[in-house]
Amino acid sequence: MAVSTAKNMPPDGHGLALGVDLGGTKIELALVAADGTIRHRCRVETEADAGADRVIEDITKAGKELIEGASSSGSGAPTAVGAGVAGQIDSHAGIVRTTPNLEGWDDVPLASRLEEAFGVPAAITNDLNAITLGEQAHGAGKGYDDLVVVFVGTGVGGGVITGGRLVEGTGGYAGEIGHTTLIADGRDCTCRSRGCLEAYVGGWAIAARARDAAREDEAAGKELVRLGGSIGSIEEITAETVDRAATAGDPLARRLIEETGRLLGFGLVSVIHTFNPRRVVLGGGVIDGMPDLVPTATEVVQENAMKVFLENLEIAPAALGDDAGVIGAARWARIRGAGTTSEDT
Amino acid sequence: MAVSTAKNMPPDGHGLALGVDLGGTKIELALVAADGTIRHRCRVETEADAGADRVIEDITKAGKELIEGASSSGSGAPTAVGAGVAGQIDSHAGIVRTTPNLEGWDDVPLASRLEEAFGVPAAITNDLNAITLGEQAHGAGKGYDDLVVVFVGTGVGGGVITGGRLVEGTGGYAGEIGHTTLIADGRDCTCRSRGCLEAYVGGWAIAARARDAAREDEAAGKELVRLGGSIGSIEEITAETVDRAATAGDPLARRLIEETGRLLGFGLVSVIHTFNPRRVVLGGGVIDGMPDLVPTATEVVQENAMKVFLENLEIAPAALGDDAGVIGAARWARIRGAGTTSEDT
Repeated sequence: MAVSTAKNMPPDGHGLALGVDLGGTKIELALVAADGTIRHRCRVETEADAGADRVIEDITKAGKELIEGASSSGSGAPTAVGAGVAGQIDSHAGIVRTTPNLEGWDDVPLASRLEEAFGVPAAITNDLNAITLGEQAHGAGKGYDDLVVVFVGTGVGGGVITGGRLVEGTGGYAGEIGHTTLIADGRDCTCRSRGCLEAYVGGWAIAARARDAAREDEAAGKELVRLGGSIGSIEEITAETVDRAATAGDPLARRLIEETGRLLGFGLVSVIHTFNPRRVVLGGGVIDGMPDLVPTATEVVQENAMKVFLENLEIAPAALGDDAGVIGAARWARIRGAGTTSEDT
Repeated sequence: MAVSTAKNMPPDGHGLALGVDLGGTKIELALVAADGTIRHRCRVETEADAGADRVIEDITKAGKELIEGASSSGSGAPTAVGAGVAGQIDSHAGIVRTTPNLEGWDDVPLASRLEEAFGVPAAITNDLNAITLGEQAHGAGKGYDDLVVVFVGTGVGGGVITGGRLVEGTGGYAGEIGHTTLIADGRDCTCRSRGCLEAYVGGWAIAARARDAAREDEAAGKELVRLGGSIGSIEEITAETVDRAATAGDPLARRLIEETGRLLGFGLVSVIHTFNPRRVVLGGGVIDGMPDLVPTATEVVQENAMKVFLENLEIAPAALGDDAGVIGAARWARIRGAGTTSEDT
């Protein structure tokens, strides 16, 4: 199969792996076959404020129920477990270092906790790396050895495959495309920096820029609020408000979306000049909700990237939707958890 | 030796390789031992306007003379030849695609031309990749598997090693750190984009920013010109003028250098959040000439990069000076030219 060309990603084997996508509001779990198909799945709510022990208990309980249910329908047990977690994840040591959305998760050795719980090798990585591995094996990045995935949701995350290998960095934290500089010393970001890509095009940042613009031109702001619907004041503007107002023809909202697309384009120019990817995959809630961003950003790339970088470049939408995280986490488990050069089980 | 841990870079062998550093003004050639020591060397001027055929003839002549001279002092013949060339280099196909400093070099199959000339396998890459390979094997990046090299001269170039491997990208053009966005839609760059790191901190850009600032505040500009010495007007300001004026205490020049250091720092934040390197190596004429840039940029990194990225990060000066290019080109030849998993000859 196509992914066998990926150099640190040997051909997938035939066993099941348990993939876990641990988000701030829900935990997706799936038993994933080596060909990337989800055989059994479940979802539980994340007790984001309850601390790591409780959430790991919830994962263990849900995972074991999933495995038992699958077993009663004839499935074998998973041979590895993998998890993708939003935050800074030491993928080498298997430790969750910090998470933006979960309380009490600093320096949690999640991989060893999952190994204890399930009795099979475990591996963890950050959520966007898991998505990238999923899209590369079975989605919009299938067959691509030089691939960048950028997801624009409330925040902006990324994952990179270069020469067939996931870029991890010395601590496993690499690929924070959302926190590359877009405007030096610019708007405050949620990380420690200023002027990051996320601080302009993330959902929270689109909302903040819209509120700033609405305050600056109050008449235009009130019109945006009116056409954006279901809110009463400028201070309540969200990215969804901007989207609705733009759809209703509001000029300020349209200008904000146009600007956002152009800014995203300049962020993609950075990524393209850095990695010379064959394919850039775009996904996430903001991209899905504001599809006009993609052609605008693509136009900026076409106008600004060096020509040799454009020769084989494709910009494509993510293909696996919410499934990418669990599929990629399971794949990561198979790659890392096997502890050998083969994913076969 | 330490580099044996680098995953696509097997232990160096014992044979000599010919390294060529093809620049816009001079061509450096060296016979380099597998341990990275230069055994024999020479330098010729680049006939930058004479076209590729003539320059390749010059390389061939100088290389053969170097090999003959080395032979008469007991050296063996090189078993591979490698070249680093400024520009967009298809390192996979061995083709120089475009060069900023040489006339008539579009789509020149330099690797096969060098193979014909010297009768040994040849490999080419861009000049900064060669420098990066040199610094990683035998200089400031020695023993580091996650390494970013940024050179600030007239232009800004970069090279990246991640997980022990050079980042090449699908066409071999990756690592253009100088052309990542620093200020979206900002100052015109020499590439097709606007607002690149190079367009603010490259030598030509420091000069352009200084001329703009001097025009904006003519009294301050005249003082900068006076203290910068040896020029008559604002239009003649170069990066060296700014450097000299700053050394003489000129406030505008000092402000420009402070700003440049801060801008470089935000560029490094991008690189650090993207690659999570263990070490960032800084070099090039502007860094050498304005050493204050480094502490200023480092301060911005310390203040703005996410903390987990700072834990093991080192920022270090390049160690091999002008030798890095030929040493790295020879190493690339050994890695690629051997066509096997061993560099031994």
